[in-house]
Amino acid sequence: MTNENRVDRLRKLTSSMAGSYQDLGGINRLGEKDLPSQPAVVAILEELLAIIFPGYHGDPVPRDADLELLLGARLDLLNRHLADMIEQTLVFCYKKKCHCTSLWDVEPTADWAATLKTMARRTSLEYLEQLPVIRQLLDTDVTAAYEGDPAAANIEEIILCYPGVQAIAVHRLAHPLYRMGVPLLPRIMNEWAHQKTGVDIHPGATIGKYFFMDHGTGVVIGETTEIGEHVKIYQSVTLGALSFSRNDDGSLVKGGKRHPTLADGVTIYANATILGGDTVIGEGAVIGGGTWITKSVPAGQQVVSGAG
Amino acid sequence: MTNENRVDRLRKLTSSMAGSYQDLGGINRLGEKDLPSQPAVVAILEELLAIIFPGYHGDPVPRDADLELLLGARLDLLNRHLADMIEQTLVFCYKKKCHCTSLWDVEPTADWAATLKTMARRTSLEYLEQLPVIRQLLDTDVTAAYEGDPAAANIEEIILCYPGVQAIAVHRLAHPLYRMGVPLLPRIMNEWAHQKTGVDIHPGATIGKYFFMDHGTGVVIGETTEIGEHVKIYQSVTLGALSFSRNDDGSLVKGGKRHPTLADGVTIYANATILGGDTVIGEGAVIGGGTWITKSVPAGQQVVSGAG
Amino acid sequence: MTNENRVDRLRKLTSSMAGSYQDLGGINRLGEKDLPSQPAVVAILEELLAIIFPGYHGDPVPRDADLELLLGARLDLLNRHLADMIEQTLVFCYKKKCHCTSLWDVEPTADWAATLKTMARRTSLEYLEQLPVIRQLLDTDVTAAYEGDPAAANIEEIILCYPGVQAIAVHRLAHPLYRMGVPLLPRIMNEWAHQKTGVDIHPGATIGKYFFMDHGTGVVIGETTEIGEHVKIYQSVTLGALSFSRNDDGSLVKGGKRHPTLADGVTIYANATILGGDTVIGEGAVIGGGTWITKSVPAGQQVVSGAG
Amino acid sequence: MTNENRVDRLRKLTSSMAGSYQDLGGINRLGEKDLPSQPAVVAILEELLAIIFPGYHGDPVPRDADLELLLGARLDLLNRHLADMIEQTLVFCYKKKCHCTSLWDVEPTADWAATLKTMARRTSLEYLEQLPVIRQLLDTDVTAAYEGDPAAANIEEIILCYPGVQAIAVHRLAHPLYRMGVPLLPRIMNEWAHQKTGVDIHPGATIGKYFFMDHGTGVVIGETTEIGEHVKIYQSVTLGALSFSRNDDGSLVKGGKRHPTLADGVTIYANATILGGDTVIGEGAVIGGGTWITKSVPAGQQVVSGAG
Amino acid sequence: MTNENRVDRLRKLTSSMAGSYQDLGGINRLGEKDLPSQPAVVAILEELLAIIFPGYHGDPVPRDADLELLLGARLDLLNRHLADMIEQTLVFCYKKKCHCTSLWDVEPTADWAATLKTMARRTSLEYLEQLPVIRQLLDTDVTAAYEGDPAAANIEEIILCYPGVQAIAVHRLAHPLYRMGVPLLPRIMNEWAHQKTGVDIHPGATIGKYFFMDHGTGVVIGETTEIGEHVKIYQSVTLGALSFSRNDDGSLVKGGKRHPTLADGVTIYANATILGGDTVIGEGAVIGGGTWITKSVPAGQQVVSGAG
Amino acid sequence: MTNENRVDRLRKLTSSMAGSYQDLGGINRLGEKDLPSQPAVVAILEELLAIIFPGYHGDPVPRDADLELLLGARLDLLNRHLADMIEQTLVFCYKKKCHCTSLWDVEPTADWAATLKTMARRTSLEYLEQLPVIRQLLDTDVTAAYEGDPAAANIEEIILCYPGVQAIAVHRLAHPLYRMGVPLLPRIMNEWAHQKTGVDIHPGATIGKYFFMDHGTGVVIGETTEIGEHVKIYQSVTLGALSFSRNDDGSLVKGGKRHPTLADGVTIYANATILGGDTVIGEGAVIGGGTWITKSVPAGQQVVSGAG
Repeated sequence: MTNENRVDRLRKLTSSMAGSYQDLGGINRLGEKDLPSQPAVVAILEELLAIIFPGYHGDPVPRDADLELLLGARLDLLNRHLADMIEQTLVFCYKKKCHCTSLWDVEPTADWAATLKTMARRTSLEYLEQLPVIRQLLDTDVTAAYEGDPAAANIEEIILCYPGVQAIAVHRLAHPLYRMGVPLLPRIMNEWAHQKTGVDIHPGATIGKYFFMDHGTGVVIGETTEIGEHVKIYQSVTLGALSFSRNDDGSLVKGGKRHPTLADGVTIYANATILGGDTVIGEGAVIGGGTWITKSVPAGQQVVSGAG
Repeated sequence: MTNENRVDRLRKLTSSMAGSYQDLGGINRLGEKDLPSQPAVVAILEELLAIIFPGYHGDPVPRDADLELLLGARLDLLNRHLADMIEQTLVFCYKKKCHCTSLWDVEPTADWAATLKTMARRTSLEYLEQLPVIRQLLDTDVTAAYEGDPAAANIEEIILCYPGVQAIAVHRLAHPLYRMGVPLLPRIMNEWAHQKTGVDIHPGATIGKYFFMDHGTGVVIGETTEIGEHVKIYQSVTLGALSFSRNDDGSLVKGGKRHPTLADGVTIYANATILGGDTVIGEGAVIGGGTWITKSVPAGQQVVSGAG
Repeated sequence: MTNENRVDRLRKLTSSMAGSYQDLGGINRLGEKDLPSQPAVVAILEELLAIIFPGYHGDPVPRDADLELLLGARLDLLNRHLADMIEQTLVFCYKKKCHCTSLWDVEPTADWAATLKTMARRTSLEYLEQLPVIRQLLDTDVTAAYEGDPAAANIEEIILCYPGVQAIAVHRLAHPLYRMGVPLLPRIMNEWAHQKTGVDIHPGATIGKYFFMDHGTGVVIGETTEIGEHVKIYQSVTLGALSFSRNDDGSLVKGGKRHPTLADGVTIYANATILGGDTVIGEGAVIGGGTWITKSVPAGQQVVSGAG
Repeated sequence: MTNENRVDRLRKLTSSMAGSYQDLGGINRLGEKDLPSQPAVVAILEELLAIIFPGYHGDPVPRDADLELLLGARLDLLNRHLADMIEQTLVFCYKKKCHCTSLWDVEPTADWAATLKTMARRTSLEYLEQLPVIRQLLDTDVTAAYEGDPAAANIEEIILCYPGVQAIAVHRLAHPLYRMGVPLLPRIMNEWAHQKTGVDIHPGATIGKYFFMDHGTGVVIGETTEIGEHVKIYQSVTLGALSFSRNDDGSLVKGGKRHPTLADGVTIYANATILGGDTVIGEGAVIGGGTWITKSVPAGQQVVSGAG
Repeated sequence: MTNENRVDRLRKLTSSMAGSYQDLGGINRLGEKDLPSQPAVVAILEELLAIIFPGYHGDPVPRDADLELLLGARLDLLNRHLADMIEQTLVFCYKKKCHCTSLWDVEPTADWAATLKTMARRTSLEYLEQLPVIRQLLDTDVTAAYEGDPAAANIEEIILCYPGVQAIAVHRLAHPLYRMGVPLLPRIMNEWAHQKTGVDIHPGATIGKYFFMDHGTGVVIGETTEIGEHVKIYQSVTLGALSFSRNDDGSLVKGGKRHPTLADGVTIYANATILGGDTVIGEGAVIGGGTWITKSVPAGQQVVSGAG
Repeated sequence: MTNENRVDRLRKLTSSMAGSYQDLGGINRLGEKDLPSQPAVVAILEELLAIIFPGYHGDPVPRDADLELLLGARLDLLNRHLADMIEQTLVFCYKKKCHCTSLWDVEPTADWAATLKTMARRTSLEYLEQLPVIRQLLDTDVTAAYEGDPAAANIEEIILCYPGVQAIAVHRLAHPLYRMGVPLLPRIMNEWAHQKTGVDIHPGATIGKYFFMDHGTGVVIGETTEIGEHVKIYQSVTLGALSFSRNDDGSLVKGGKRHPTLADGVTIYANATILGGDTVIGEGAVIGGGTWITKSVPAGQQVVSGAG
């Protein structure tokens, strides 16, 4: 292979790839700019986590007296970055004409760019104002872990070393964004947690106080799952959909309650699979490891493998 | 412990470790240079992914007019880095005298270094020339995900947030390297995807169009697995070996078809385990969650737990 | 929303968050300084791994002649960093008054800071002096992987690409720290391996030579597990606790043998769950995939699914 | 000083500084955004230098065959960055209403932002198209240095180690920008060269081929200086203004020829000071070290210091 | 040279160098820790400059409304870093027993470490409280440059591109530290400015409002120089000492007024040298280029070269 | 300008630049690889300075006991980097066929690459073995500064803040490389010091003990200058060549003694210019500021400016 030949073949490959960007439908993004980048979203998420758990992420613990001086600046910067990110996402979806967000029900105006900017700024600040409440929720989750695992030596070990706690922390941060109708960002956040912890929670899932997942790897919690308080879940548990409805044209029906409901005080052991939007696990029920559940379970009942 | 004592003990420890490098057989690499480093391989893989999915990895979306100017330079640089990496790997294997690659069937010459360099350059360019076809395959996988999951809001979310799509994207890039006989590099690529997604696909597996893995964590797909088109797999599914043949000396027989075959349109639910090189799952069969399959399943059949 | 309004709301949010740091009990760390940061612990762990597997982490392979010159300096620096990290952890625990470490049984003195420093330095050096033995153990694990997987082409692939080997390597480094009573650090190390590999081993687990985990994702090995030599474990196997004893006040009894014991030569296939501190799997027993074991299994026996 | 007191004083200082930003006239920039940052300008300059002197700045020397593939992409990127930088500078000046640029004589339109963007893009590309000519000029300067200094061992040493060559290289890149009316950027470029070399050339100075400055430290060359070909200048030479004209209101007259003219073949030794816009140093004249010249010198004449 | 030989020689060199650290008096620092590092001091200086000239150093210009939120946090962090740096310097000097600082006249106490910490914190905050006044001074210097140079297009060019303005900005920041008795730090700051600009001002020099140095390279201003208001200095001017007094033992007398005094409105052209502590240049005097002045010059007088 | 037009013009510019690389003689480096990069040389120089002045460059001061452990590794690494750099430089010069080094007088062999490698390794180690002596020399220079400047508060200030000391430190490190015949590298080192300090010393200059330059900016010391012990030089002093001999073809005679000789105890004040290879300044002579010297000056004499 001569050098000239090589350059020639590289030129042909370049044309072929450039053509591929234009011809291919689904994964071709030429001309659609400004998709929010995963690293930028993760940077915002990491700042949120650092504010939620002060001193746990390598930053120095702020001293009492001048805490507010520093915190105010951090929240101000975070607010700007988050507002910009939400705006970029909204513009992207607006140009794509997708209907993925409940934010759209504002009155459309001639100046859509200004409308989306306003929407993004309002959403960002309203979201951040929920942080103190999110911290209260996470405090209950950490308590549940401490009280639920004999191996836990102290609170700090739980926050630093429990993947289930990491996963629920990210979910508690992502879920309000999902509820406010912000597209894509909460999904990117939870998928990042999935990569780190092996726990795959859809940001749409509703989860009550004092939630504890031990070990966590392989846990899957679907979009329309509802979970009560004081629920405990072990590794490789799936809370999934049973079957999908289809439209007349054969395409999937998007939306609808597809995942189970867990009442307060439920415990689910490793490798259990619970499926279906009508499936309700009653208060205090205990689902044994490796079970396969597609029908509701009454309150207080114990289900063991072989009973499916 | 005085300072002198400490230094003394450190010196003894140093000698002991240095000796350990020389005495120990298996994990001793003294004198065998130039193992390709994982970060360097991952850098090449990330550039491949950025070219396959333009605009998804934080780099600006190239404008139509000067797309080829930029893309040509990127492919040229990528080609050099990849050729160097393949050459380094070949030299390493050649010095180790391992027989891990089909590239060896070139005519050996006195100047083995030049032969390996030529081989590496030819392999690199031939590999890159397959990128447009790889993009076409991935387009079918993304479509399968969009059509297979009611929770998927749009194509962008699938490319950014679906670990199964990430895993198959890496596999589609690694598999041709494996087929061309490049040692080590495809394994490093797929193990990186394993770390990120929890999906463990051996680069040797053959996988057809429109492949979809939902959630993905815990999926294992062995080296000699063959998968048809329009196959759907859920989390924690294993496509594995049943038992290993041994040589007369008790060592394992390497190679041979050890993993199952899945025909077109097969669906396998969570936690199913399918083992054995002679096991064939027929067209359109549905394997229920938590099942244990070691024998073939006819086309169209549904297998549920309890039937193993 | 005017700018003034925005700043006003940010100030209110700042006060609210600052108050939340002070009011909230469990996850409030104001005033408790110097928690060891995860990135710093990981940096030490990566240096340990680089020394254990020379040439595998992108650093140049040292030449024989001046190996000791370089190695001595690396060990010296590592010793300082590790001693500082242990000291910081001890100070943190001392201030928290937690009783998480067996190091406390030194005679307390008026000058506790100096005592902890001495303790940390002695511990660090004694720990590093175990590295040559740790390398010997890991050599057996790598051998077990090579002999146990027909897909393994060579030793280098195993060290670079087998998550199970990565996980056991980190465990073999973390376990002696756990045994010496160093709090938090071994847990941070093993949780890092968990993130990378999906294998969750508590640093307290005792594991014999020639240990092999294939694929690894979803494996959970509890704190008081005891594993013999030549044991082989497949993905998603749990070695867990059966139930937890509680004190009179309803709180969990911490400590106590809660996880199973595996004798030499045991093999456990994918998705098996073995629970309980009194559960012993006898020598050479084979536990089938997807089984649920809560009672002891005699030596040599084969257990298959459906027998749970 | 209590902590509360400290925070209190910090708050007061903050208010005082914030007020200072608003009250102070000259150096207050609140509300005037987007001043081009020095690091960004220097990054563009360094890319220009790397393209002008290929292989001298640590980047690999491109091989002949695929040179154009790489160079095209570099020039494309450089063109974008430079166009953006020029646009930012024009917008800044437009908002400041300063009349610093000859670019303003385009027809003003309602949409000034679009006009400035077009102007910037046109200017950037026209500028880059001069690079081949700039290289030819620099080739003569390097030749002059090699022929003018007995200590010069080779061409490479001159490009790498002669501050006078560095300074003229930057000037030859900055001067066309100045001539095209781009504000600020050429000044930032030459001041960067001043910092690196101690040679202070105003980007407005006109300098002919084969220009050589030995050592260079302390050389000052004013805005309206005109220098012929084959001129040689030693360290600490000043080519400056004699006196400044003032307007009726006492302010300085800006513009006008204020600095000397040097004909072809002039040599000026160290510490000479030549002042005044009417001062002409004739062809081939030699100005001795430490002299003070405020009147023209005929061609061929030698001027020596009074004390010599 | 064999490898063994090389290592042997390296070992001998190591011993020799290690011995050199211990034997050599003057430049041996073994055992004297914590000299403030130049990069750390420069980082503080750059933050000071960014606060003094907001928007000029590549950081975004803060918007009016939330200016104080951000500025408060920056000043708080700066205050901590500066206090730590001053403390480190004081401890260093205290251990060295040098008498380089007027801070020492506090009452010594048993707990010198706590005393130095308190001293450092007080000094840092009192210093920062002078920043608004320093900004007012610099505003006059920028005005003087704008009014003094016909080539200056606007205020921004002056702040970005005039080395004389950079140098006086650093001096105005360093001088108060010098006056407050902080050792070493102001010297490191001014030497950094010297490296960047070629202007060498000792931090002890007293300089009035509206000070302008054009070009600046080679300017030297000694420790006990006193300069009035509206003074203008050109490149390579020296304001130096004439001769040094010696003690009986032949050592230099440290301290004492050794450098000249310049009254208001003085102008000094390039390469002039003015020496001696008793030399006073009277109000409005003009000193010509290249002159050598060792005696006082009356107010209003013009001195030209050749007249001394 | 349409996009197509722009891309078209960029392509033309690319061809033009690519052609310029091939046509232009002097500054065209296509095809000549591996010029040592300035940043790599500076990195080596900075490591040399850090070893010469331990604790002054931000690295922690090594403790006595384990000093040798660390120092040995640093010297070993430095030796490799330096040997590689020298080898690269020799290969470059060999390919260029320039005769710039006295290293060439080794016996040429068929295998020139191996010869140059051996030469480089021997040179590197022999050079490093001179470091202890270089430290002794620098100790005398620091002492001379402390005894020569009343403003010097302590030794640390001199090492950290005196540009003259920085410049002589670099020269003392570069000069032995020059003497051993290593091309280019010592020039790059001294030019770096020139950039930082404004002091331009050719690495060929011979300088005795106790050398002190105050302020330093603008000092020029030519290649064949010889300086005795206890010499003191102020800012902007030139020790230069008077005139250059030419060969019959008009080209400069390279080599030969062209710069002055200064005996022991000479002092030269600011702005003095001393030229010529036959010019000798006798022991203890004092040369006044601003003088112009082209003839020898007897021992003990004082020369003052014609007017002074």
